[in-house]
Amino acid sequence: MITVLAGGVGAARFLQGLLAVHRPSDITIISNVGDDAEFFGLHVSPDIDIVLYHLAGLSDDEQGFGIRGDTYNVLDAIARYGYDTWFRLGDRDLATCITRTDLLRRGRSLSEATAEIASALLVPARIIPVTDDPLRTKIRTDEGMLDFQDFFVRRRTEGHTREVIFDGAQGARPAPGVIDAIMDAEAIILTPSNPLVSIGPILSIAGIRDALQKTPAKVIAVSPIVGGKALKGPADRMLRDQGMEPSAGAIAKLYKDFLDVLVIDNVDSKLKAQIEPLGDARGGGVEVIVTDTIMVSMEKKAALARTVLKAVAA
Amino acid sequence: MITVLAGGVGAARFLQGLLAVHRPSDITIISNVGDDAEFFGLHVSPDIDIVLYHLAGLSDDEQGFGIRGDTYNVLDAIARYGYDTWFRLGDRDLATCITRTDLLRRGRSLSEATAEIASALLVPARIIPVTDDPLRTKIRTDEGMLDFQDFFVRRRTEGHTREVIFDGAQGARPAPGVIDAIMDAEAIILTPSNPLVSIGPILSIAGIRDALQKTPAKVIAVSPIVGGKALKGPADRMLRDQGMEPSAGAIAKLYKDFLDVLVIDNVDSKLKAQIEPLGDARGGGVEVIVTDTIMVSMEKKAALARTVLKAVAA
Repeated sequence: MITVLAGGVGAARFLQGLLAVHRPSDITIISNVGDDAEFFGLHVSPDIDIVLYHLAGLSDDEQGFGIRGDTYNVLDAIARYGYDTWFRLGDRDLATCITRTDLLRRGRSLSEATAEIASALLVPARIIPVTDDPLRTKIRTDEGMLDFQDFFVRRRTEGHTREVIFDGAQGARPAPGVIDAIMDAEAIILTPSNPLVSIGPILSIAGIRDALQKTPAKVIAVSPIVGGKALKGPADRMLRDQGMEPSAGAIAKLYKDFLDVLVIDNVDSKLKAQIEPLGDARGGGVEVIVTDTIMVSMEKKAALARTVLKAVAA
Repeated sequence: MITVLAGGVGAARFLQGLLAVHRPSDITIISNVGDDAEFFGLHVSPDIDIVLYHLAGLSDDEQGFGIRGDTYNVLDAIARYGYDTWFRLGDRDLATCITRTDLLRRGRSLSEATAEIASALLVPARIIPVTDDPLRTKIRTDEGMLDFQDFFVRRRTEGHTREVIFDGAQGARPAPGVIDAIMDAEAIILTPSNPLVSIGPILSIAGIRDALQKTPAKVIAVSPIVGGKALKGPADRMLRDQGMEPSAGAIAKLYKDFLDVLVIDNVDSKLKAQIEPLGDARGGGVEVIVTDTIMVSMEKKAALARTVLKAVAA
């Protein structure tokens, strides 16, 4: 049993590789929901859906989110009613959002609704939102406190990120199965995702960080920072805004209280010796694995997953 | 000021003519909502939207409902999640339904939501749902008690209609402005719509029938039955199922407690003498006007509206 902490496109791409080389029914994905939002009264769970669409073979790989070949006829029409339409929800993507909203309004929890949608899309792995309670990432920039999607999509991550806040984290409980999935797994994998706004919201939920420290499972992270730059998105800039040098080392530091293995890219091989002493939670530092982490093809994704699984077995 | 009781395609076509020959801002449309339904958690108001789309120049005139050139991408995708999709909501039509649902969930009444949508579509006349309270027409056939759209769309009106029930009519109040629109109008026009399931639900709301009897306005109906057949839909068969002969005379009988003028088609001219004594609410019977009521073109629609307005002025 492998449990994956996931958020966004980096996670989805890594998971495509993992499901290609490991039995999908033995994989549990715990998804970020801090980027959930409401548009036109519909509940949108972008990180969950990015993973679902990738694993269902429906993803629009060019833009990273949404469904391949989707159309925008609802969005174009709804603009007439005065709604903002900068969040580009396609028609088929909206069908998912309408379904999720309907299930929630009929009393299902977010994890139950997610399971129903995943099942309809024939996604073979289990996916659980980290919490069924409302959790909303907010970014404080010089413009003030912004909703995550306002910052991320509408403003294209522009501006100095003074603070990252996980609104609702205080009272939120892990969704059913989340803590067990961490405690009972053979390995926990943190995907190459933004540590602040993709993995960060997951770690903000009471009990998660504690479970990661206590689990007998090996905890392995794949660095999303390669050669000092984020593979995708603003992670490098956001790390710098938080006073951290954007490097694979920053990832080790952020996860150091529970991390056993960090997978870094070949271009960062010189950082290995510097990172190894950083993780000290279980004593003995962090094992650092150097490999090709750039997931430009299905072969590369599978190869990265195989390398990670080898570290699990070691 | 003219107030129109409206439901469905017959109403929408008549209103296109009326708005072409009378100042739209002096027209109030009171719409049936008995055919409202919920699909995928979205509130659908078919009769309101048919009228709005016709008056906004967006209507799909071939199928009578929906928006011209609409696509069905959401519907095709949502079928995957297990929903029935026999009610063919197009993508642009869904944008209206999503908006209405959002407005209702944010606390607007159905009449407030309708006004906002009508304004966005630049519909120049005022349109009010007859009630903001839930009112659902149900049809009892040999198959049991059916929701209106189940009977009307899914089963294509098949089967003997044993009973027509207006669920919720008991406690429903007229929406704000409805009674005033009846009491203060110069004329009330009942469109050539199914008297049982289009106009019937409107008349089922407490106070409406009473207002129609008491208003000083002239009350004029256009018969939807021509030569013993419904212009569209199952009105003729449903009248027979209720033990009434499907004829313009049946319309006079159904409305006799408030009707001043009945407009019938040329093909029914021989019924004139037979109908005239039927309406007796105000004494003196019903005035019968014989004209061409088949609205096959914009010219015919406008001509019919002009004939009706002439009867108002008389």
